[in-house]
Amino acid sequence: MTNIYAVILAAGQGTRMKSKLYKVLHPVCGKPMVEHVIDQISGLHTEQIVTIVGHGADKVKAQLGERSAYALQEEQLGTAHAVIQAEPMLAGKEGCTLVVCGDTPLIQTSTMEALVKHHVETGAKATILTALAEKPDGYGRIIRGADASVSRIVEHKDATDEERAINEINTGTYCFDNKALFDALKNVSNENVQGEYYLPDVIEILKAAGEIVSAHQTDSFDETLGVNDRVALSEAERIMRARINEQHMRAGVSIIDPLNTYIGSDVEVGADTVIYPGTILSGKTSIGIDCVIGPNTEVSDCAIGDRTVIRQSATFNSEIGADVNIGPFAHIRPESFIHDEVKIGNFVEIKKAVFGKGSKASHLSYIGDAEIGSDVNIGCGSITVNYDGENKFLTKIEDGVFIGCNSNLVAPVTVKKGAYVAAGSTITNEVPEEALAIARARQVNKENYVQKIFSKND
Amino acid sequence: MTNIYAVILAAGQGTRMKSKLYKVLHPVCGKPMVEHVIDQISGLHTEQIVTIVGHGADKVKAQLGERSAYALQEEQLGTAHAVIQAEPMLAGKEGCTLVVCGDTPLIQTSTMEALVKHHVETGAKATILTALAEKPDGYGRIIRGADASVSRIVEHKDATDEERAINEINTGTYCFDNKALFDALKNVSNENVQGEYYLPDVIEILKAAGEIVSAHQTDSFDETLGVNDRVALSEAERIMRARINEQHMRAGVSIIDPLNTYIGSDVEVGADTVIYPGTILSGKTSIGIDCVIGPNTEVSDCAIGDRTVIRQSATFNSEIGADVNIGPFAHIRPESFIHDEVKIGNFVEIKKAVFGKGSKASHLSYIGDAEIGSDVNIGCGSITVNYDGENKFLTKIEDGVFIGCNSNLVAPVTVKKGAYVAAGSTITNEVPEEALAIARARQVNKENYVQKIFSKND
Amino acid sequence: MTNIYAVILAAGQGTRMKSKLYKVLHPVCGKPMVEHVIDQISGLHTEQIVTIVGHGADKVKAQLGERSAYALQEEQLGTAHAVIQAEPMLAGKEGCTLVVCGDTPLIQTSTMEALVKHHVETGAKATILTALAEKPDGYGRIIRGADASVSRIVEHKDATDEERAINEINTGTYCFDNKALFDALKNVSNENVQGEYYLPDVIEILKAAGEIVSAHQTDSFDETLGVNDRVALSEAERIMRARINEQHMRAGVSIIDPLNTYIGSDVEVGADTVIYPGTILSGKTSIGIDCVIGPNTEVSDCAIGDRTVIRQSATFNSEIGADVNIGPFAHIRPESFIHDEVKIGNFVEIKKAVFGKGSKASHLSYIGDAEIGSDVNIGCGSITVNYDGENKFLTKIEDGVFIGCNSNLVAPVTVKKGAYVAAGSTITNEVPEEALAIARARQVNKENYVQKIFSKND
Repeated sequence: MTNIYAVILAAGQGTRMKSKLYKVLHPVCGKPMVEHVIDQISGLHTEQIVTIVGHGADKVKAQLGERSAYALQEEQLGTAHAVIQAEPMLAGKEGCTLVVCGDTPLIQTSTMEALVKHHVETGAKATILTALAEKPDGYGRIIRGADASVSRIVEHKDATDEERAINEINTGTYCFDNKALFDALKNVSNENVQGEYYLPDVIEILKAAGEIVSAHQTDSFDETLGVNDRVALSEAERIMRARINEQHMRAGVSIIDPLNTYIGSDVEVGADTVIYPGTILSGKTSIGIDCVIGPNTEVSDCAIGDRTVIRQSATFNSEIGADVNIGPFAHIRPESFIHDEVKIGNFVEIKKAVFGKGSKASHLSYIGDAEIGSDVNIGCGSITVNYDGENKFLTKIEDGVFIGCNSNLVAPVTVKKGAYVAAGSTITNEVPEEALAIARARQVNKENYVQKIFSKND
Repeated sequence: MTNIYAVILAAGQGTRMKSKLYKVLHPVCGKPMVEHVIDQISGLHTEQIVTIVGHGADKVKAQLGERSAYALQEEQLGTAHAVIQAEPMLAGKEGCTLVVCGDTPLIQTSTMEALVKHHVETGAKATILTALAEKPDGYGRIIRGADASVSRIVEHKDATDEERAINEINTGTYCFDNKALFDALKNVSNENVQGEYYLPDVIEILKAAGEIVSAHQTDSFDETLGVNDRVALSEAERIMRARINEQHMRAGVSIIDPLNTYIGSDVEVGADTVIYPGTILSGKTSIGIDCVIGPNTEVSDCAIGDRTVIRQSATFNSEIGADVNIGPFAHIRPESFIHDEVKIGNFVEIKKAVFGKGSKASHLSYIGDAEIGSDVNIGCGSITVNYDGENKFLTKIEDGVFIGCNSNLVAPVTVKKGAYVAAGSTITNEVPEEALAIARARQVNKENYVQKIFSKND
Repeated sequence: MTNIYAVILAAGQGTRMKSKLYKVLHPVCGKPMVEHVIDQISGLHTEQIVTIVGHGADKVKAQLGERSAYALQEEQLGTAHAVIQAEPMLAGKEGCTLVVCGDTPLIQTSTMEALVKHHVETGAKATILTALAEKPDGYGRIIRGADASVSRIVEHKDATDEERAINEINTGTYCFDNKALFDALKNVSNENVQGEYYLPDVIEILKAAGEIVSAHQTDSFDETLGVNDRVALSEAERIMRARINEQHMRAGVSIIDPLNTYIGSDVEVGADTVIYPGTILSGKTSIGIDCVIGPNTEVSDCAIGDRTVIRQSATFNSEIGADVNIGPFAHIRPESFIHDEVKIGNFVEIKKAVFGKGSKASHLSYIGDAEIGSDVNIGCGSITVNYDGENKFLTKIEDGVFIGCNSNLVAPVTVKKGAYVAAGSTITNEVPEEALAIARARQVNKENYVQKIFSKND
């Protein structure tokens, strides 16, 4: 097999994005565009990937880390100039070099594989990835010769009416013979209106040298979408969203409305799970089988067991077991460990807390910095008072405890096994096993008081 | 009028659904596909409906109950074999028999009526429901003779290029002369690659016997969609959702975004009600006129009066009166009866409770297992303590009571007419009429305490 | 430059809307249709705008106020009859008169400008705004003469098959020479099946008099959509939503899903702000740069600073500073002033309250009728008891105060600078500076109580 190298063009500012964030770092379905590109290139088993960085170089490098080598393009003098920056790393090597734009987040491994295969089979020195565009305006058109090889690329502005009728367009992705590429790049000139060095000029140079230039037409125009502004960004997001959701549906997930369900590229979902509309699953999230998620639920970086239900809620960076019932209107904050068969009900916030099997916090509670045993019942409105204005402290509630409603557990404090806290109590000291703790005033009824204090006739 | 019988094919597992749930039981807009089919067939006044069951037979029968007779297809040996199972019930009867797949949830009564009418008028022994497909690939094509009657059906794989250019396709829904159907079925063979008995072979058998076979072309290809995987399931959901929403809009309901509003087939909504996006109305729900529902609101199995507003909330299996204001972020759980002019505010949960006219629970409360009179004001954070870890008890709050904030009402307990509970009290005993009940400690201010206990310079 | 007058037809009931609300008052993206029309006309610098009112005249006048003059059409006898009502105000004036329907909310200033320009350049007495319709059924077709001027308009029902094949349609928007218009209107007859006076008849009358009638074709059929029922209303909403969202995206706002994001026409959003799905921004709302809004968030009539995050929340008619963090599941009610760096956490309601810089109410609180200083920490579950059943009172919390969890602050009350309220206290009296206020019972543990009171073997 031939050696494959890849050059990712990621140096542009992306003026039309109107953003402080560098173009290729804008996320699509939660992941920066350039990372989608490198993810897909990584499927090809390349010898080396070189990312051309420029604007925001440090941030792009921080994002991709050791997945790529980097070449700095200090000034943005055109796409050919960008590729030349990779010369110290790639020149003289045997094999073929893919050139892919960092702003084409939808391109897939299989398409690049087919491009390389076509390139090798035709013996071309350069192969252009092309697609059929419904509205080819603005794109370079592919002029093919009698033998189906490429005669040349005509830019839209230079095209005749007849050429403009061609709807096979240059997607901007190429496969080159590596040596031929760097030889040809030396001859690219910037004698044009913009004063830039353009990569498509390499095609002309190779043709002039009598080399074969080929074109591989993909049947998915969508995949080749380049993102230059936020309208295109939202379009890329829409297409990738549909692609991800279709994969989940084909694998046995029911998605009530795939247009209105937002699943990140790295999320796993088990079969027979049903996802209701308005749900956002992001980050490194995995969801078991037979779950019900949504509507209007956000799950980010969570591992969720089987048969768990999460409705109208938000859960972040936590582990949630099987047969758990969360929501509606619950909020699980990071570093929570919710074991099996737990119930977290409405208007409950959990933060950095462990909930043992079968425990419940059904209503209007805040449980933070806490270790809750199994089969604990936390009454409505009960709160762990974990913060004194200076520090945060731990609350421990052991197995089988019953916490009465509207109680305060002033941390650090432990309620031991099987104990019972009366409703309305503020607990500041340890409660022994099986004890009843009570801390509230006795009720006094003042008869006819209401008539005295209120004038009812106003 | 001719007698009409119907056979529903509902025996398949639906392997491509990748589901433990049998295919025809997968819901579309909240109702199993096969139930949509039987709902529409029921509009025809049939003599008898026979549902062919196989995989999941018991669950399908449990779903449809007495609306259909059943015939068991023990092995799935093809569509003709499926229909043969109905022979004991239907053979020899005068009239026509509709054969409809249980996985075509979008088909409508009017289309089947038109099919039967066409069948009767043409005097055909079999009439195929056909449609024009934009992409007919994979479908059987209808080959019509000079007189517009059907010559034959050609399966896609057997079709010539010329035949493949035909875009009138077999939808898989048929109307047969009942006797001719069962006579012909005896001659269907399984001598084909799959070794199955195919229903379209009946057409060929009838043609060979010199009978007329007709085709009725519906103008709605969408209606004939067969659901074989979850991508098609979501597509069926989308089409039915649009159909339901259009009906409500034409009847005077404002739906801000019909693409993002999910209304079940059996929901009723009054005129001039406005539904905001992200709203799910399901089950046996009825909503009055001039209401505002949503955004992001779930209403399931509720009867809701006129001019009621429910925003960013979830309400289940309850009755809610007129001029009620709920939400945002409220949760009405089953068996609640909310009378007119009640206000249920943010972060309030109601469960199995009656609220009399004009009463309010405006913030952060849980009212469960309770009878609330009229003109009651339940202060912020007040809670019915209905559970002692063993049993649930009732709270009664009579007319005109004022419950102070953050109070606990420890059930069983009654607060009698016109009484007043002071903020922060835990009430364990009955409060007499017009009395003030108070159960809290007196405030003590410890001067300069803060400086003593906290080092402020860390 | 020529004088421009405008007549808006806004007298119809809109029977097919099935609404008590008059047709032109139905909102599109939060603004009544007729107000969209007048907004766009106002961009033209007209001499005078006359709105023809009829059904719901008072409400239409109340909506538009002094932006228009009004003429009452007491009976709805057709579009020509409607325009005649403007005669007392416009007859005899030099210049051109636009006639626009009040139910075409999508028409834009630029299109009307182009219409007027074309009208003036061609020297026509009448110029019809036309568009190409994909499905022209039901529309009047434009029959052009050899010189591209208009020969006549043929109504669909009167058209020959050849004429029906024409897809240039009459949009119902016109520019007339003002004098010619009112002269011709005198000759319009109601001798037709409906007995109405039709405005297109003016075209015929002018042609018969040998005048030039011209047509200006806009390339946006969408813009000319007339809303006659709620299906069309939702379609208009969809198109306007897309238009508004595209403008924001081009200006540097990231909208994850523009199909599922609802932004009013008068909302401003800063660059690099990210809007998540299910978000509704309405009224006079302005949002700063680098904010994160949504998912599922409603912001109405709020001014929001830079870098502020609002998630899964609802905020109304308030001012919110920079670097503020709100939600998820928070509710900011009107007349709140949230200064910079404030945190309003989950299940917190704010009403008519000031929050000083850096203050926090992180969980399960209701703060209403309150002045909160800077660097205040309001503990979980704390509540301002602002209502005694008769009146509302003010709570003041000065800088640097720490309010312990589940406290009640019974207004009117002041907690002075640097004071500390112990968890579970009900505060009824002023707390001095730096004092600790405590109002709760001491904890008592009753050993082995649980075994005594509960039979654990049931």
